[in-house]
Parts: sequence; structure tokens; C-alpha cells
Amino acid sequence: MNKLVIGGREFSSRLFVGTGKFSSNELMEKAIEASESEMITVAMKRINMTHEATDDMLTHIDRNRVQFLPNTSGVRNAEEAVLAAQFSRECFGTDFIKLEIHPDPKYLLPDPVETLKATEQLAKMGFVVLPYIQADPVLCKRLEEAGAATVMPLGAPIGTNKGLRTRDFLQIIIEESNVPVIVDAGIGAPSQAAEAMELGADAVLVNTAIAVAGNPVEMAIAFKEAVKAGRRAYEAGLGAQYHFAQASSPLTSFLD
Amino acid sequence: MNKLVIGGREFSSRLFVGTGKFSSNELMEKAIEASESEMITVAMKRINMTHEATDDMLTHIDRNRVQFLPNTSGVRNAEEAVLAAQFSRECFGTDFIKLEIHPDPKYLLPDPVETLKATEQLAKMGFVVLPYIQADPVLCKRLEEAGAATVMPLGAPIGTNKGLRTRDFLQIIIEESNVPVIVDAGIGAPSQAAEAMELGADAVLVNTAIAVAGNPVEMAIAFKEAVKAGRRAYEAGLGAQYHFAQASSPLTSFLD
Amino acid sequence: MNKLVIGGREFSSRLFVGTGKFSSNELMEKAIEASESEMITVAMKRINMTHEATDDMLTHIDRNRVQFLPNTSGVRNAEEAVLAAQFSRECFGTDFIKLEIHPDPKYLLPDPVETLKATEQLAKMGFVVLPYIQADPVLCKRLEEAGAATVMPLGAPIGTNKGLRTRDFLQIIIEESNVPVIVDAGIGAPSQAAEAMELGADAVLVNTAIAVAGNPVEMAIAFKEAVKAGRRAYEAGLGAQYHFAQASSPLTSFLD
Amino acid sequence: MNKLVIGGREFSSRLFVGTGKFSSNELMEKAIEASESEMITVAMKRINMTHEATDDMLTHIDRNRVQFLPNTSGVRNAEEAVLAAQFSRECFGTDFIKLEIHPDPKYLLPDPVETLKATEQLAKMGFVVLPYIQADPVLCKRLEEAGAATVMPLGAPIGTNKGLRTRDFLQIIIEESNVPVIVDAGIGAPSQAAEAMELGADAVLVNTAIAVAGNPVEMAIAFKEAVKAGRRAYEAGLGAQYHFAQASSPLTSFLD
Repeated sequence: MNKLVIGGREFSSRLFVGTGKFSSNELMEKAIEASESEMITVAMKRINMTHEATDDMLTHIDRNRVQFLPNTSGVRNAEEAVLAAQFSRECFGTDFIKLEIHPDPKYLLPDPVETLKATEQLAKMGFVVLPYIQADPVLCKRLEEAGAATVMPLGAPIGTNKGLRTRDFLQIIIEESNVPVIVDAGIGAPSQAAEAMELGADAVLVNTAIAVAGNPVEMAIAFKEAVKAGRRAYEAGLGAQYHFAQASSPLTSFLD
Repeated sequence: MNKLVIGGREFSSRLFVGTGKFSSNELMEKAIEASESEMITVAMKRINMTHEATDDMLTHIDRNRVQFLPNTSGVRNAEEAVLAAQFSRECFGTDFIKLEIHPDPKYLLPDPVETLKATEQLAKMGFVVLPYIQADPVLCKRLEEAGAATVMPLGAPIGTNKGLRTRDFLQIIIEESNVPVIVDAGIGAPSQAAEAMELGADAVLVNTAIAVAGNPVEMAIAFKEAVKAGRRAYEAGLGAQYHFAQASSPLTSFLD
Repeated sequence: MNKLVIGGREFSSRLFVGTGKFSSNELMEKAIEASESEMITVAMKRINMTHEATDDMLTHIDRNRVQFLPNTSGVRNAEEAVLAAQFSRECFGTDFIKLEIHPDPKYLLPDPVETLKATEQLAKMGFVVLPYIQADPVLCKRLEEAGAATVMPLGAPIGTNKGLRTRDFLQIIIEESNVPVIVDAGIGAPSQAAEAMELGADAVLVNTAIAVAGNPVEMAIAFKEAVKAGRRAYEAGLGAQYHFAQASSPLTSFLD
Repeated sequence: MNKLVIGGREFSSRLFVGTGKFSSNELMEKAIEASESEMITVAMKRINMTHEATDDMLTHIDRNRVQFLPNTSGVRNAEEAVLAAQFSRECFGTDFIKLEIHPDPKYLLPDPVETLKATEQLAKMGFVVLPYIQADPVLCKRLEEAGAATVMPLGAPIGTNKGLRTRDFLQIIIEESNVPVIVDAGIGAPSQAAEAMELGADAVLVNTAIAVAGNPVEMAIAFKEAVKAGRRAYEAGLGAQYHFAQASSPLTSFLD
């Protein structure tokens, strides 16, 4: 399989994992380890904006193997996002930033205009910008032109577990994009992660579905397997859908 | 994971593979090996009703590891099916029989009445009967009562690759069945196989999607991984779907 | 528009309406009148098996305009169904019978084998048999051969309002049937009734969606309009679906 | 039913019709008349930018009854859109403008940033702006704040006839919007138009599905009926979907 490269860094795993909503830090760490993910999102609130990583979570993870992806969750516009990204760079010692600007507290959907504006600024400032956005193909092209390292269109509203409700638009985005496409938000089951990969997505980000599973560690493994399966199927070449049945077995009548 | 038991035989793999439509026997064998399947369907036409297995296909497969599942494809009613099953028992030396009675040559959909009748007779004759049928929950209960070893409801018409179009009914079948439920027909991508397993299906049967893939061996591996992922997710406990967004990251406003 | 003929009787309306679940008989009557339906189902329990129609419901409906369609709801097998049909013929003075055999009290799904058996017997006895069944194309052909006046495949389990979950199979049934196809059960919104008609169904049966609506009379009108719209669209010839956009407006660049 | 008001004008019909793709102007006129639409889109190319309406199409339509909605199709950015709107105002003598900015010629998807910019400018210039956009709830709020008279989110890419692929997002837009929501693009069948209205959309715009139908005039009537049915159902209050069956008929066993 081709490797995924973002911001000059190579990733063997195509499963990105979020760190919110776990019932304990210990469980989160174990799930992340089991997932074999090499890119994990971290909320800045976790470190309370102190300039050192005091959160237990951060101390046990091998950053040679795992890239931290701080997100800007909680900011309301481009200006706040840029400020947050600068803090983040100091705190976490990384240029990677997951840009999340969602002014509406109910559905947490991203703001396309502020996201584009912040992407432009942050890219100029040397950040590796991964913007979380609607599955809007034109916006994705503009983010790419503005210097985004990837685009991260959503499959369904965050935390709904509804899967690829934006499938028709994800297909267009994947077809037209020159930067990696990572499906973010809405993926609630390994089958949905596999579906995203079969469409040709470069990676998926999963958080809620692992964190709130009955057994988060086993669910992390299930997602790992499903992402591999989906990517492998994409590379192996899936068949088309047909209206009529296509017999698998010879059909000449049995007793002729 | 709990093991799957059918006809007194234990199966580690929950992926059943069909042997039709491959471009060569060699490719078929390699794909089957890669799939790690322990149950493969074989059409009786393959051996031309001679009483010995002359087909190259059959000679290279280790029957200690792999159970042959001859199918009755081509028969039009219960009477022909019973006759075919008897031939099959002699030819293949197994009591396992995949019952397929589909009089209509266009969509190859199964006949519920003849299938039930044949199941009753074959079960009495000591066969391990795996009937291929519509995703009809009442019929499934009647087949179970008639002695079917499993039920094999279809996801979509054979060879269409449309996936779980019968999902609402599969859920009911799985909930109510006392015998293993194997989703047969229509599964066109690993994500769809994973979805069936997440619903709680005991196994899936895949043929076309592997056989006609750009790279059948890689696709077989992808299905193997996806089936494992789906089963693991089912056992780990998937979350519900929500209408409203559920934030993964702390949302207290950034600059407060 | 071509008229619908069942049992030698011509129907201008393609909306059949059920009479269960209304909060009052008065509301039911008004809704039926508003629907302009010419075929309404009646449960035999309504008349308590007395040989006269004492139910208020029955007295106010003009049977020259509206065909009563008694159903056998509550029977568990063919034998009971035949008995129920005979009672029904005496009570209601009609040969029309909606055959419903659903032994399972949870999902109320029809029994294919007993339904076929009862259809055969009732057709021989001169009944106009409208069997309620799974969307099983092979079963539909066998019912047709057994003398069914129509087939009534379900869209989704009764009362779920889920719409045409069996769409793929309804299409095949419609394509292959020589008797009218009436989609029964699961239709929860006028849009879903329209969709069934667009596929080429000859009629739809709606009950729950009208009876439990905020305003059942207005909802009955909405279904009436939607059924007409769907049928008209079917006859006018719908376009295909496309993957790529098809511009509606001239696209030559504006300022060239 | 409540009336729809846009730009101070009241509309009895909630079906907007596009004028592209018809095989003749005569057929277009007849279809528009049959649709009873009071808002029809016109492409500026149709009048070749001459300052008089020479197109036959325009001369036969009663503008007291029908509002012309010129669109900016063909422009690539906000600047061109503003220029086009000004021409349009002169040519058509109306402040109504359908804002369409889609730089990509393949999928004709709208540009969110340029659309917002043009909306701001045109609203300040006194235009009644109806922007065509992605089903992006945050963008819709921003367009509303910028002075848009309505929002016109797409159901699927233009001309694909795929229906409400953006359904999850349309629901949020409808819930949150203070201006009328008109579903534009992708609606390929009357059932889909009814579905949009059932969700609570204020109107739908249909073009391709009518223009390319086997019989465009009949299809226009079908859409008219379906839009009415869907709106009526929305106002009458639709029931919820259920997982379990809900019996319509009394279920006490028949022969007890």
C-alpha cells in the first residue's frame, strides 16, 4: 500500500483517533495503543493552556511513533483560531493543527468562511493545517489552494454515528482533491470506516465510536482492521453494482 | 470470540467463499487460501456428475481445514434438489448441502415453498442443510423448525454488489433465530460484510465480489479483515445513532 | 390514466385505506371520505362475528362507491384463514378478502407458506383474494398462479412508517407481475406513497400514517394527492439518475 | 396553508420551475402553465444581454401572476455575479436574483465564499437575493445575516435526479433558518419534492425532472400535486418511525 504523507511526515496507519469522551485516561491510552494509530487529536483544554504537558494522557504516549494533532475546538472565528494555534504550537511543540471553527453549540458544524480565512493565515505561518469542514467540494478546492495540508470533510454531524451521509459529495471531493482527504465526524461503526476507505479516502478520524463502545480497546482493534480492509479493497479494485442478478454458479439445468 | 458451529463442525472463520466466476482455478485457490475461509461452496456442475473429483480445484484444497459446501444451483424444485443433494453426498463425501432453488433465470431469487419442502426432506435424510432464501423472518423460523442447520438470507439479488438492502429484515431474523444466520448474496464490498457482522450475523458468504475484483487475492484478504472487524465490533458493543451532535472535545469557549 | 381493475370491479382511486387505529369512528369516516378511497379494509373483530353489521362505521359508508376489504388479521394459519374468509363473506356480503396470516405477534410479518395454501383454497372457493406478503418476487409469482387477484407486498414492517425498505424487490415484483401490485404496510408519508406509484405499483394501502396523524383528514387528502402525483409521474415517464451534474442553464461563461 | 412570502411578494404555489433543457419554448410554456408555478427561473443568456426581451418565452408569460427569477449561471465569482445581477435588473425589470456561482464546470457545485460575498453586496444594493448553495447549515445562517431573502440548499448535484442526499443537513437548516428554505437541485421525482416539503422546506425548485420527462406537461402537474401533498402532510403532522410493528387491526386471536 502507498503510504500517507502529511506535513512531510509518513503515516503507516490510516486511522486517526480522537481522545475525548473516554471514561478514563488509562482506557484511552490502551485504546490508542490497540488502534495502532499514529495521529491522535488532543484538545487544548486538556492542558489548561499551561506551557507544559501535565496531563497524564500526554506523558505516556511515544511521540516518535504518534503525531499529536491539537485541535482548536471551542474557538468561534478565524482570529481566535489563529491565537489558539499559536498557543498550541508552544504547548505541544508541533506545527500540526486541526482547525475546528464551529460557532453553533448544538450541531457543532464548521464555519466555511472563517475556516478558509484561518487556513490561509495559518498556512502562511508555517502550520500544517488540517481543517474540519462540510463535505463541500468547492470549499475543499479553495482550502487546498489556501495551503491546507489535508481536507477533513465530515460524514455526518459529530457524534451522531450516522456514517457517510455525505457520500455523494465525498466521492467528488476524493476525485478532485490534490491533498489527502480524511473523513472526520459521524463514523460510528467499523463498516462505515471501511466504506470511506473503499471510496478512496486517505484516512478516517474516529473518536466517539471508540470512546463510548462497550469495550473501547476491542473497538479500536475493530476499526484498525476495518480501515485496513477498506484501503486494501480500494487498491484491489471493487466491482460495480448491477441491477440484474449475476449468477455465481453454473446455471445449466441440473438434470438435463 | 465465540466459535461458529454448524453440523457439529467448528469454524474459526466467519467468511464463507464461493468458487464461481474466477478467471482461473489457480487464482481461485490462491484467493481461497488468502481468505482463510473454512467453508467454500462448490457447484455440482464443476464435477460433471462423475463420481470422482476430477476438477483441479478440488484436489488442491485441504479438506481437513476446509469444509466443502456443495450447492444445488440449477435445480428448479424440491424433488430435483433432493436428487442433487444425494448425488452431491456421494461425489463430495459430505452431508453439508447448500440448498438453492431458484426457478427464475433472470434474478435467481429463491423459491420459499420448494426450499422449505426440500429442507424438511433433506434434514430427515441426515443432511446438514443450509438453505439460501429471501430475508423473510417467518420463513426463517419455519426452516429452523424443519431442521435447517442455518438460514442464509440474501442481502440483495446475487451478483448485484448492492449490499444489505434487506437490512431491516436481517435484523429481525438475527434477533429471532436459534440457528446461525449467514448473509448470502449481494455483498459487494468488505464494508458491507462488516456491516452484516455488526448486525450480529454469524457469517457471510462472498463470491462475486472477490472473484471479479481487480486483484482477487488482495480482495479476499480485505474481506477476511472486514469480517473480523465487524464481528469484533459486534462483540465489543456499538453505540447508538443520535440526531444531535455529541461533542468529542471540551467545548468551553477558548478565550474565556 | 388507466383504471385499476380487481375482481371485475373498476377503481378510480389507487389509494386503499385501513380503518384501524383512528381515535374515533367519526374521524375515520371523515378521513375515508376525504381520501376518496374506493377500497377500505375492515377487521372482522369490528363486527364481533355477529352476522349483522352493527358497527357504526359500516352503516355510514356508501358501498356502491366503496368496496369493503375484510381482512383475516388474527388468524394463525391457512385453515383459520379459510374459516375467517367464509364468515367474512356472510357478514360483509363480499367475495373480497385481504389475506393476512402472521403468526408472530411482535413484527406481524406474513407467513409465506400458509398464505400460499390459503390463497389456493380461497381462489377455488370463488374469493377475490388479496394476500399480504413479504416482497418476495418468487412467492408473488406463485400466488399469481394460485389465483390471487393481486399481490400485496410490504414496504416495511406494519406501522413502522419506514417507507420502501423493500424497494429493490418491489421493482422486480412490479416488472414480473401479471396481477395488480399493491404496496401494503410501512408507508408512513405521502412521499413514500408517491415513490411506490412512481415505481409502477398499481395502488398503495395506508392505515397508520393517516390514522395517527395530527390531522387525519388533512393527511388523507395529502395521501390522495401524492398517490395521484406518483401515478401521473409514472405514466409521464421519469428520467434516469446521473452521477455527473447536468446543467439546467446555459453555461457559456457570462462575460465572454 | 400559510402563504410563502419572499421579497414582499406572496406566493400561493410552493413549486418553482426552471426553464432550461425543454425541447421547445412552446412545451416549456405549457409545462409552466400546468405547474401553476408563480416563480420561474430564467437564464440571462436567453435574452442575449440585449436590453429587451426578445425571447418568445418571455412574451407569453403573465408577469402579474408569475415572478421571473433571473439566475447568474455562468459567472465565476462575486464580482461577475454583481455585474450580472445589475444587467438582469435592467433586462427583466425585477430585483429578484437567483445567485449561482459555480466555478467548476463538471459538477456545477456552488462556491460558498463568493456566494456569501455577492449576497452581502447585492442585498445592500436592494436586490432580493436567493442564493444557491450547499446544504451547509452554518453558511445558511451567514447568508441570512448577510441579507439573503431565502436560502436555496441543494438536495444533490444539479441534474442528477438523486433526490435528498443532503437530507440530514436540510433538516438542520430548516430547523434553524429565519428565512424561507427552498430545496434546489437534485430533485428528480415528485416523491422527492414531497419529501422535501414534508421535512418543512418552504418550496422546491425543479427543472430537469420536468423538462426531460417523457411528457413534461403531465410531469409538471405531478410535481404540483406532490408539492401540495408534501406541504399538507407537513402541516397535518406526520407520525414518527418505529422499529417494531404496530398493528393496524385488532389482533386478538380469531377463533378464541
